[in-house]
Amino acid sequence: MTSPTPQDLDTLNDIVGEKGLIRPGGHGGDDLVPYETCVRYGSGQAAFVVRPATSKEVSRVLAYCHGRGITLVPQSGNSGLVGASTPDGSGTQGVLSFDRLTGTSESDATTYGQILFDEENRTVTVGAGVRLSDLNAFLEPKGYVFPIDLGADPRIGGMIATNTGGARFLRYGDVRQNTLGVKVVLADEAGTELNFMSGLRKDNTGIDWKHLFIGTTGVLGVITEAVLNVVRLPQQSTAALLVPRDEAAVLKLLLEMEERCDTNLTAFEGMSAEAIRAAFDHVPSLRNPFPGGEIPNYVLLVELSRTWAKRDSEQSLDELMEVVLAEIWEDEDAPLDNAFIGRPEEMWALRHALSEGVKHAGKLVAFDVSFRRGDLMKFRAFMAKELPEKFPNVRICDFGHVGDGGLHFNLSIPQDDPRLDDENFIPSLREWVVQIVVEKYNGSFSAEHAIGRSNQGFYDSYTPKKVKELAAQIKNVLSPGNLGDVKLG
Amino acid sequence: MTSPTPQDLDTLNDIVGEKGLIRPGGHGGDDLVPYETCVRYGSGQAAFVVRPATSKEVSRVLAYCHGRGITLVPQSGNSGLVGASTPDGSGTQGVLSFDRLTGTSESDATTYGQILFDEENRTVTVGAGVRLSDLNAFLEPKGYVFPIDLGADPRIGGMIATNTGGARFLRYGDVRQNTLGVKVVLADEAGTELNFMSGLRKDNTGIDWKHLFIGTTGVLGVITEAVLNVVRLPQQSTAALLVPRDEAAVLKLLLEMEERCDTNLTAFEGMSAEAIRAAFDHVPSLRNPFPGGEIPNYVLLVELSRTWAKRDSEQSLDELMEVVLAEIWEDEDAPLDNAFIGRPEEMWALRHALSEGVKHAGKLVAFDVSFRRGDLMKFRAFMAKELPEKFPNVRICDFGHVGDGGLHFNLSIPQDDPRLDDENFIPSLREWVVQIVVEKYNGSFSAEHAIGRSNQGFYDSYTPKKVKELAAQIKNVLSPGNLGDVKLG
Repeated sequence: MTSPTPQDLDTLNDIVGEKGLIRPGGHGGDDLVPYETCVRYGSGQAAFVVRPATSKEVSRVLAYCHGRGITLVPQSGNSGLVGASTPDGSGTQGVLSFDRLTGTSESDATTYGQILFDEENRTVTVGAGVRLSDLNAFLEPKGYVFPIDLGADPRIGGMIATNTGGARFLRYGDVRQNTLGVKVVLADEAGTELNFMSGLRKDNTGIDWKHLFIGTTGVLGVITEAVLNVVRLPQQSTAALLVPRDEAAVLKLLLEMEERCDTNLTAFEGMSAEAIRAAFDHVPSLRNPFPGGEIPNYVLLVELSRTWAKRDSEQSLDELMEVVLAEIWEDEDAPLDNAFIGRPEEMWALRHALSEGVKHAGKLVAFDVSFRRGDLMKFRAFMAKELPEKFPNVRICDFGHVGDGGLHFNLSIPQDDPRLDDENFIPSLREWVVQIVVEKYNGSFSAEHAIGRSNQGFYDSYTPKKVKELAAQIKNVLSPGNLGDVKLG
Repeated sequence: MTSPTPQDLDTLNDIVGEKGLIRPGGHGGDDLVPYETCVRYGSGQAAFVVRPATSKEVSRVLAYCHGRGITLVPQSGNSGLVGASTPDGSGTQGVLSFDRLTGTSESDATTYGQILFDEENRTVTVGAGVRLSDLNAFLEPKGYVFPIDLGADPRIGGMIATNTGGARFLRYGDVRQNTLGVKVVLADEAGTELNFMSGLRKDNTGIDWKHLFIGTTGVLGVITEAVLNVVRLPQQSTAALLVPRDEAAVLKLLLEMEERCDTNLTAFEGMSAEAIRAAFDHVPSLRNPFPGGEIPNYVLLVELSRTWAKRDSEQSLDELMEVVLAEIWEDEDAPLDNAFIGRPEEMWALRHALSEGVKHAGKLVAFDVSFRRGDLMKFRAFMAKELPEKFPNVRICDFGHVGDGGLHFNLSIPQDDPRLDDENFIPSLREWVVQIVVEKYNGSFSAEHAIGRSNQGFYDSYTPKKVKELAAQIKNVLSPGNLGDVKLG
C-alpha cells in the first residue's frame, strides 16, 4: 500500500490528460465524492480518480501503478451492492473509473466511441464504460436488446465483473452466457492488454480466458471492452400473478409452466406479502390487483413473451396463458389457488417497486443468495420458523428469481429497535443467515453481486483453504498488482 | 517422461484393483489396443491402462503418477477427432480410462453408480464415464434430455473436456452452458480433489473454476463427476429443407427465421451439394427429396420444436413453418429459392449421414472451424474460388452449423491421387486452409473438438506468445504433473 505522491499524479495526468484525472481538492474540493460513495454500503476516501478513455490508456495506468505499488480500485457504474467499487478509508487508493471508457479499439477512427453492431452475428462490441440503458437505447430501434433485465443501470464492465443475472435469467442466462469476448488489461509490469474479442460462438482452442475475468470483481484484470450477444426484442408479452396453493406448490408450478410454455416462459419471480406490502406503502400509486386489496402470502409473477408480432392465424400469448392455467387448474390437486392475468407493465411495476419498497420499510439487511431451485422455498420455510426464535421482531420481506434459485432475502428491522445500537447485532444476524444458506442448504452467499468488501468475510470463511491458495496463485500469475480491495487468496 | 516399472504397475494395481488395470501383454496380449487407437487419427502405444472406478481412486492414481513422473493421458469415450485421447508412440504413457468412472460420490452407498436426477433443479449428477446415450436413455422416460446433439456417442467427461457443441447449439448452447458443476482431480503431489458440485445456477463467489477445466482437454485436471442442466424433451417438431437464392441469402434467411420463430428454431444447418451427394452414395436407402433428384448447390435444414404436445386450440409447428415460409416468400427479393417441408426424421437422417458419407468419398481432410456467423458463407465463397487454383482436384464437401458459425469444412481428394504419396501434401493443404480461417476471417481452427495432437501445431502458431506463457503458468499452478500430450504453454 503506497500513498501516491504529487509526482505520481503528474505522471498519471500525462497518460490520461486533464479530463482524465481528478485530484483531491480539485474544483470545489468535492469532485472525488461521487467516486468515493457506493450506492448502498458505506464510503471511502480516494487518493485520486483516474478516468482513462481507451484500453491503451488503462494499460499505461496499470503498468505505472503496478510499478509504484499503488492500489487501483476499478469502478464501473458504481451501482453494486457489496462494496467492491469504492476505495477504503485510508486515502491511499486510487479509483480507476470507467466513465470515459465508452469506445472500442475494434472500430476505426471514424466510429471510435460508438457501439459496433454486427447484426448477422447478433453481437455488439462495446467499451466497458457504456451504460446498460445506453446500449439498449442504441439497440431498441434496431429491434434488439441485451437481455439482462436489472433494476439498476450499471455499466457493461461492472456487469461482466460481477456477472449479473436479473429477472429474465430463466430464459436468457446471465452476463457470462451473453459475453462472447473481452479485452482485458492486467495489473503487471507491462500493463498487458489481452485481446479475446473474436466474438465467436464456438471456439475451443485452449483456455477460454474470459471466464477468469467474468464474475471476479476486476481482481484478476480490468475488462475494458467486450463483445456481447444480443437478442430480438420481444414483440408480444403477457403476464400473470399466480397464488400458489402452498409453499411446495411453487416448484410444482414452475415445472408445469416450463413444460407447458417452453421458452415462452421468460420470467418466474416470487414475491412475499411483506415485500409487496412495502412496495404499496412506498409507491401509493401502484394498483393493488388483489380482490379486496388482500395480499396473498406469496405471489408469483410469470411472464410469457415472443420475438414476433402476433399473426392472425395464431393464438395470442394471453390465450396461451389462459389455456395453460386452465390445464394446470384441471388437476385435482392443482398447485394453484388463484391467478390474475393483467397488464404486464402493471405487474412489472409492482415487481420493480419491491426493491425500493423494502429499503423504506425499516433498517434493511439484504442478502443476495441462491439455492438449487428446490431448496429455495425450503430455506424460506426454515427461516419463517427459526428466525423469530433466534432474532425476534425481524421481518422477512424477500423476493426472488424462483426460476433460477436466486433469492433477495431481505430482513427488515424497525428503525427504532434498540438492538441497532449494538454494532454486533447486524453482523451476527448476517452470519447466522449465511451459515444456514451455505451449510444447511448448500447455497451461495453471493448469487449475482460477486465479491466485495461487505461479503469478503463470507468468502474467507466458506471457501476451502486449497481453493483460496490456488486463487492467490492465479491472481499472482495474471495481475500481481493491486486491483481493488477484494482478496481471493 | 518416465517409463513405468513393473513396481509402478503393482502400486497402481493396489489402488484400482485387478479390474482397474490393464498391463501390456495381458490376456491375448492385445487388451491395450482399443485404448491405443483413436477413432479418426492415428494410434499410439500405451505403457498401461488404468481404469479407476471412483474420483478418490483417480486422486490416488494422479498423486502416484505425479510423484513418479509418469504421463497419464485421460481417455473418455475416445471418440474425439483431434488425437487428444490416445498415447504417443513412445510406449511410456499410461492411459487413464473413464470406462468405470460411472458413479458419483454425491450419492450414498445404495445409489452409487447411478445417475442422480434432481427434477426440481432440472439437473443430473453423473460420473464422467457415463455415455451420452446412457444418460439420455435414463432421462427420456422422465421427459427430459441432455440437449447436446451429436453424431458420436462420447462419455460426459470428454464432452466437458472438449466442450462439444453439436447441431442444436443455436437453441441449447454448448456443454459449457449446460455444465453447472464439476468435480476435478489435479495432477499434483496430493492428487487434489476439488468439489465444485453445488449445481447452483447463480453463484458468483470468486473464480468460477469449472471454466478452466471445460474445453481444455484434461490438461489442467481430470473431470471425474459433473452436474448437468437438462431440458424438457421436445414433444413437437417439424423440419424443412430450404434452398437459398444465393450465398448471401443464407444469413438473411437465418435472421428472418430467428425473428419469426424465436426459440422455436432449434436447428439451422447448412449442407453442400457435394456432402449430400456423398451421403446418397454411401447410404443408398436415403430418400432423395429434391425434384428430379437434382441436388441444389446449398441446402439448409431448419427445425422447429417445442416441449409441449400440440393443443387443439393452437397452430401446429407444421402450420407455423408454412406461415413463416410464406411470409418470407412474400418479399420481392425473397432470399428463398425453394422449400420442402417433410418428415423431420428423414431430413435428419440425411443430415446425420453426411459425416459418414464424406469419409467414404475419397481421402478426407477435415476441419472443424468457426466464424462470426456472417463470415461463414464468405469463407466458403473464397475457398470455392481460391482452392482450385492453389490445390486443384480437391473437392469441398462441407456442412455446418450456420446458426452458430461452426463449419465442418471437409476436403476430399481422390484416393488414387499421386499427391497423397507426398507426405507434405496434406500438411501444407491443412496449413493453408487454417491460415485463411484464422488470419483472413478471424475464425477458430477448433470450434468444438478442442486441442489434441493433430491441431497442437495450430495452437502453437496462432496463440499469442504472452497467452501461452500465462497458460503454462496456470497449468503449473493447477496440475504440474503430466496430463495428456497437449502443451498449452
